[in-house]
Amino acid sequence: MERVAIFPGSFDPFTIGHESIVRRALPMFDKVVVMIGVNTNKQSFFKLENKLRWIKQVFKDEPNVDVQSHEGLTVDFCKKVNARYILRGIRTSSDFEYERAIAQVNKKMHPEIESVFILTMPEHTPVNSSIVRDIIRHGGDASQFLPDGLNMEEFNDHED
Amino acid sequence: MERVAIFPGSFDPFTIGHESIVRRALPMFDKVVVMIGVNTNKQSFFKLENKLRWIKQVFKDEPNVDVQSHEGLTVDFCKKVNARYILRGIRTSSDFEYERAIAQVNKKMHPEIESVFILTMPEHTPVNSSIVRDIIRHGGDASQFLPDGLNMEEFNDHED
Amino acid sequence: MERVAIFPGSFDPFTIGHESIVRRALPMFDKVVVMIGVNTNKQSFFKLENKLRWIKQVFKDEPNVDVQSHEGLTVDFCKKVNARYILRGIRTSSDFEYERAIAQVNKKMHPEIESVFILTMPEHTPVNSSIVRDIIRHGGDASQFLPDGLNMEEFNDHED
Amino acid sequence: MERVAIFPGSFDPFTIGHESIVRRALPMFDKVVVMIGVNTNKQSFFKLENKLRWIKQVFKDEPNVDVQSHEGLTVDFCKKVNARYILRGIRTSSDFEYERAIAQVNKKMHPEIESVFILTMPEHTPVNSSIVRDIIRHGGDASQFLPDGLNMEEFNDHED
Amino acid sequence: MERVAIFPGSFDPFTIGHESIVRRALPMFDKVVVMIGVNTNKQSFFKLENKLRWIKQVFKDEPNVDVQSHEGLTVDFCKKVNARYILRGIRTSSDFEYERAIAQVNKKMHPEIESVFILTMPEHTPVNSSIVRDIIRHGGDASQFLPDGLNMEEFNDHED
Amino acid sequence: MERVAIFPGSFDPFTIGHESIVRRALPMFDKVVVMIGVNTNKQSFFKLENKLRWIKQVFKDEPNVDVQSHEGLTVDFCKKVNARYILRGIRTSSDFEYERAIAQVNKKMHPEIESVFILTMPEHTPVNSSIVRDIIRHGGDASQFLPDGLNMEEFNDHED
Repeated sequence: MERVAIFPGSFDPFTIGHESIVRRALPMFDKVVVMIGVNTNKQSFFKLENKLRWIKQVFKDEPNVDVQSHEGLTVDFCKKVNARYILRGIRTSSDFEYERAIAQVNKKMHPEIESVFILTMPEHTPVNSSIVRDIIRHGGDASQFLPDGLNMEEFNDHED
Repeated sequence: MERVAIFPGSFDPFTIGHESIVRRALPMFDKVVVMIGVNTNKQSFFKLENKLRWIKQVFKDEPNVDVQSHEGLTVDFCKKVNARYILRGIRTSSDFEYERAIAQVNKKMHPEIESVFILTMPEHTPVNSSIVRDIIRHGGDASQFLPDGLNMEEFNDHED
Repeated sequence: MERVAIFPGSFDPFTIGHESIVRRALPMFDKVVVMIGVNTNKQSFFKLENKLRWIKQVFKDEPNVDVQSHEGLTVDFCKKVNARYILRGIRTSSDFEYERAIAQVNKKMHPEIESVFILTMPEHTPVNSSIVRDIIRHGGDASQFLPDGLNMEEFNDHED
Repeated sequence: MERVAIFPGSFDPFTIGHESIVRRALPMFDKVVVMIGVNTNKQSFFKLENKLRWIKQVFKDEPNVDVQSHEGLTVDFCKKVNARYILRGIRTSSDFEYERAIAQVNKKMHPEIESVFILTMPEHTPVNSSIVRDIIRHGGDASQFLPDGLNMEEFNDHED
Repeated sequence: MERVAIFPGSFDPFTIGHESIVRRALPMFDKVVVMIGVNTNKQSFFKLENKLRWIKQVFKDEPNVDVQSHEGLTVDFCKKVNARYILRGIRTSSDFEYERAIAQVNKKMHPEIESVFILTMPEHTPVNSSIVRDIIRHGGDASQFLPDGLNMEEFNDHED
Repeated sequence: MERVAIFPGSFDPFTIGHESIVRRALPMFDKVVVMIGVNTNKQSFFKLENKLRWIKQVFKDEPNVDVQSHEGLTVDFCKKVNARYILRGIRTSSDFEYERAIAQVNKKMHPEIESVFILTMPEHTPVNSSIVRDIIRHGGDASQFLPDGLNMEEFNDHED
């Protein structure tokens, strides 16, 4: 049976930390589906269409990575793409407690779905989308925290 | 002197975790008053009148449990109902740090009021109102995280 | 039914932090039994007989405080003294995680026994027996971290 | 070379905890510039002009303290005032993880700028602007958490 | 290529928490090797031969689980059994920080080896070997925290 | 007045993380004294004379760094070398809580001494002496976690 994992997040924006998690997880799974969560209650800084294009661009040479967006419960997306694994990266102990609650509730509701965690590389620990967003919003240069090969000009196309 | 505790929260919604805390605390106190905090600055997902009815329904056979709503400082409610104890459940270490600051400030302002903590049962640790709300908002079945005997249909009556 | 709580610890030594927890908990319970745990596997710095005398001295005017020593499981001591509550103070989030595991295992084995927590006063947060012991071992003056009315000379009577 | 530190924050409001950090840091630096961060995306409870006046009033006898406001990246403000140090107080381990990410990203972008931390005094640990704001909003008396010598009447001049 | 994971630990003793981690991880890997770490510097409570027999007994019907002991660096054992994954369960945020340091150092020294984490089930969160050992040492009944089908009499065969 | 800081630790061994903290702190102080704490109750893995030689070697070109050993309370050493600052690096939130207690007790006993913290660089976060020691004990190559220019052969000269 094929081992499919989803990698859900708001990716606002997708950072080198996210990229690293996906690349390191690739040997463990037959396929990794990056799921851009759409939350109608929370304004996104970058447009969904940009996020989709950027992440696809990052993994354009990885046939085992797929990128999709989804609105609704993460476990419903797992069923849609036949994934049995939810992949998440953890940086800090606050991340951990947040992830643990969600993973345990998901497990309780859908025992067949397993959440799997890998830890960010030390150098990526401080990189989070909120800080990166803040740098971009104020006109700073965040390119060292973003995947290679993206057109930085495009990052000016954001809300707010 | 009667030992009265209040159990404050936004209960948006009241979960099996909350219910368990109240039931376990009952032998310690002569009376437990569940206080639904009303925060005019923060939109509630469920209506106050529904919260009140649901929690009263859960404890309808417990003469030592009272349910009220309150807008304002928690310590002021303590005085109103002659309570000397503020009861709180703690699940995680992030909960702990948040609760500690509030309890210590309350103690500083009102030394006669004591905050008392019990820890959630392990199986309730991941259950928090925010996750339950998210499940309900997206049409999932959260009934296993809610007290028995409630009419689940009613949970469709919410904001957003 | 009488509400009896035990307050277990190694109290090596008993600090102003411990004293404060007992005094604040007294109104909640009809009796608080301070239980000095004896661990045959771990060397104690102060002698058991000294610990017993010091703690009894601290509460000599409190008829509702009893002081005893115990070797073995804490829950067995609860049964011996008819206590239904285990009282603990928490200072930090590391304390919290340690206490949570013990409290939840105790609850699982003896559902009728409840662990109850209060948080130390802010000014007592850094005071722990290990640091106090270290000061005494190196000849420093730790009297401000110890209960009033003790004969400080006696603290020279220790192992090591 | 002059050692200049900035002390950035939203100070909504400036508490005795903040005051204590600045006073304790003064001997370490030749100058400390309190920087009131202006975040156009987040509503402030107190008006900027009030914050500026209050903090200047607190340090009116300290020639080595300067008070300014700034909108934008903190590191840009460092350059503007020739500061090589960013001073921050830490109260809790959640504070710590938040501060660590920001400090490490700043260091990565501007290796010549160092973030320096001192820990709040134990009695100030529970004092945070959010709790103080909540007390003021509901008409409680928060004066014991605010610097001496301020006109408390003025604190009624706030948003919301 | 076969996906082999090792599950290292001192297992002093192996609990239902450990068992659950291995069973949940089995679908993710082609083989899981339980590695009982031998630390000549730290006295083990249970004898190595007993640990080996117990864990083999637990997984006697699982052809994809192997049980071995190892003295030395965990990464050396990975090479010995051709494992590319180190599997660990995490219960609490203290666990997390401990595991993160080890995983990141291992990754730095052997980039081809990946540490993979799953979170314990909520009901297993408080179960740790140290607490279980303490119960057994004092003659309590720890059978509910140990895998089914073991001969409890045997647990009397321990050091100390 | 000269700003002197001490940097205390057991340095068993001194790692690249320690080295980085000292180098980054140098511009803040006129002098940094590395204090190797001698704890007669706890066996050291490396010999004191080796630790002294190694650390002196690391900073042989830094006239503002001094290296000494000390047995007893850290604050007594501060007085001996006329230091008003205790410098510490923090890596994780467990580090933080441990450091906070010690710093706050020191401040309480000697208000004129200030503990000052800087955060390790992200890539040094997982590097701690205990893990490095473990690698060396088992014959692994820990040189990438140790300061440049040391003779690695010498690290075979250790206890145990």
